[in-house]
Amino acid sequence: MHHPVLPWQTARMSTLPSIEQKLQRQAREVEQLLDRLLSPERRPDEIARPERLRAAMRHGVLNGGKRLRPFLVIESAALFSAPGPAALHVAAALECVHCYSLVHDDLPAMDDDDLRRGQPTVHKAFDEATAILAGDSLLTYAFDILCAPEAGLAPAIQVELVRALARASGLGGMAGGQMLDLEAERVSPDETGIRLLQAMKTGALIRFATEAGAILAGVSSEDRERLRQFGERIGLAFQLADDLLDLTADAATMGKATGKDAARGKGTLVSLHGEVWAREALSRLVAESETLLAPYGEKAETLLQAARFVADRKN
Amino acid sequence: MHHPVLPWQTARMSTLPSIEQKLQRQAREVEQLLDRLLSPERRPDEIARPERLRAAMRHGVLNGGKRLRPFLVIESAALFSAPGPAALHVAAALECVHCYSLVHDDLPAMDDDDLRRGQPTVHKAFDEATAILAGDSLLTYAFDILCAPEAGLAPAIQVELVRALARASGLGGMAGGQMLDLEAERVSPDETGIRLLQAMKTGALIRFATEAGAILAGVSSEDRERLRQFGERIGLAFQLADDLLDLTADAATMGKATGKDAARGKGTLVSLHGEVWAREALSRLVAESETLLAPYGEKAETLLQAARFVADRKN
Repeated sequence: MHHPVLPWQTARMSTLPSIEQKLQRQAREVEQLLDRLLSPERRPDEIARPERLRAAMRHGVLNGGKRLRPFLVIESAALFSAPGPAALHVAAALECVHCYSLVHDDLPAMDDDDLRRGQPTVHKAFDEATAILAGDSLLTYAFDILCAPEAGLAPAIQVELVRALARASGLGGMAGGQMLDLEAERVSPDETGIRLLQAMKTGALIRFATEAGAILAGVSSEDRERLRQFGERIGLAFQLADDLLDLTADAATMGKATGKDAARGKGTLVSLHGEVWAREALSRLVAESETLLAPYGEKAETLLQAARFVADRKN
Repeated sequence: MHHPVLPWQTARMSTLPSIEQKLQRQAREVEQLLDRLLSPERRPDEIARPERLRAAMRHGVLNGGKRLRPFLVIESAALFSAPGPAALHVAAALECVHCYSLVHDDLPAMDDDDLRRGQPTVHKAFDEATAILAGDSLLTYAFDILCAPEAGLAPAIQVELVRALARASGLGGMAGGQMLDLEAERVSPDETGIRLLQAMKTGALIRFATEAGAILAGVSSEDRERLRQFGERIGLAFQLADDLLDLTADAATMGKATGKDAARGKGTLVSLHGEVWAREALSRLVAESETLLAPYGEKAETLLQAARFVADRKN
């Protein structure tokens, strides 16, 4: 299959650090923090850290992900010159929530996946009960991280972050989206249903990522709304790219089973409207992102690179 | 089997409202709040509330429990004359965490229970995937409730409550305890191991309940430590009474399977030291509670009634 080189792809030829290099650099920082946060040493008020559960949490979270959501938190915060350590903690908390959702989604009762990024999933490497508890504990830990003094955040901002993260991940966000996704296996949703499902299942957490940068920087509600809308565009682009990849990539590239959605007869916007439409929609989302972040000029370049990267991703 | 009437049991003969009546009255208030919190109406920033997931969460949390932990939060807060609505919200949040743990513990991969308080467990009434998500969402919602403006708490106190609740429930608390409990099925722990397991699995959340009352009232660290130690005593008493009941009660009284611990060969302090020792330990814990709360005089009477009730409970 052939598709034309789109304008933003030429950015790859620059000698500045590529978005992939920037992602990798920040992924390492987030992983170093997660590694420290999941060390054997217990935090005040913890009674003990049972070794098997800690190991399963580490397996679920220190597994070489791209760390896109943490990157979005950190770069959104940097847009407003917020302090780096605070952003790093919020990024780590968000990644704990994202990884908990992967651990639970992979369970036999859910998507029943044996592989995740080329490695055995947590319930395969350990067992089902341990995977359930590891997911639960990663989710719980996210809120601890947000409220730990080390993050150096003001209480009013911590409260806002906890509330926003909880609403993005729970009944009215990601978990609700996974519920709709499970129901979609029985009754195929129409386009409105697919959009709702995707906005909840993947969109809510990505939107939180960019909005969190604004929240932790304590900016005006106008800036916050702008970052929120930018996050919505990234979420939509991420999902479209994912649906395209599910159709076209093979398991070796993705490090997980592919073509599963199609095999289950699950509708996606790509299956409804086709690949050409999807690639046009991706261009439009990138253009909208550029408009949204135009007021920040040069400072927004990395975030826009990220938007292009998401729209164009190959795995 | 015969055991003597212990001094505190004569309190039952008073004409004042019994502890059972007080528990019931407050359980109703907490349930009314949980019912409102789990209405179809979404909160700001929630995208939608998928009906099946909401119903499963309600099944898991509105199931006629005794609401002991909420009661301890509310009465501990009342000891310091903290505002009632704030305490009620913290109580509801804690109950969400407690009930999430029951939903997940009941799963086939964990304790595999079909009944809970005489009703089908969530995975029986719905299915496994829905039960996993309902537990996840109840846990997530707890942190939302703590940080919602309706609770009327100061941000610094909300942050402290989130952190304390997360540490009581996660890797270093309840979830860690459940991990140890699962491991205890393979390798029987010694007395130190049993005490650690119980302190984490049931103790941490009960200790949080009484400490939360002190935190939300914004009291001195001395008062907070006193309530924390009182909570530890209640937690120990609760577990001893539970172990006694597991040996002696039948399924009809408990509304769930009993004798399971013994059947699985799981050691408890009661199986190690016997019933007589256990009843003496319970008396001692009640006496220690009285000493801890003595500085509060008459105001602590309801909390002490609760301690006696826990030590003496029949189901």
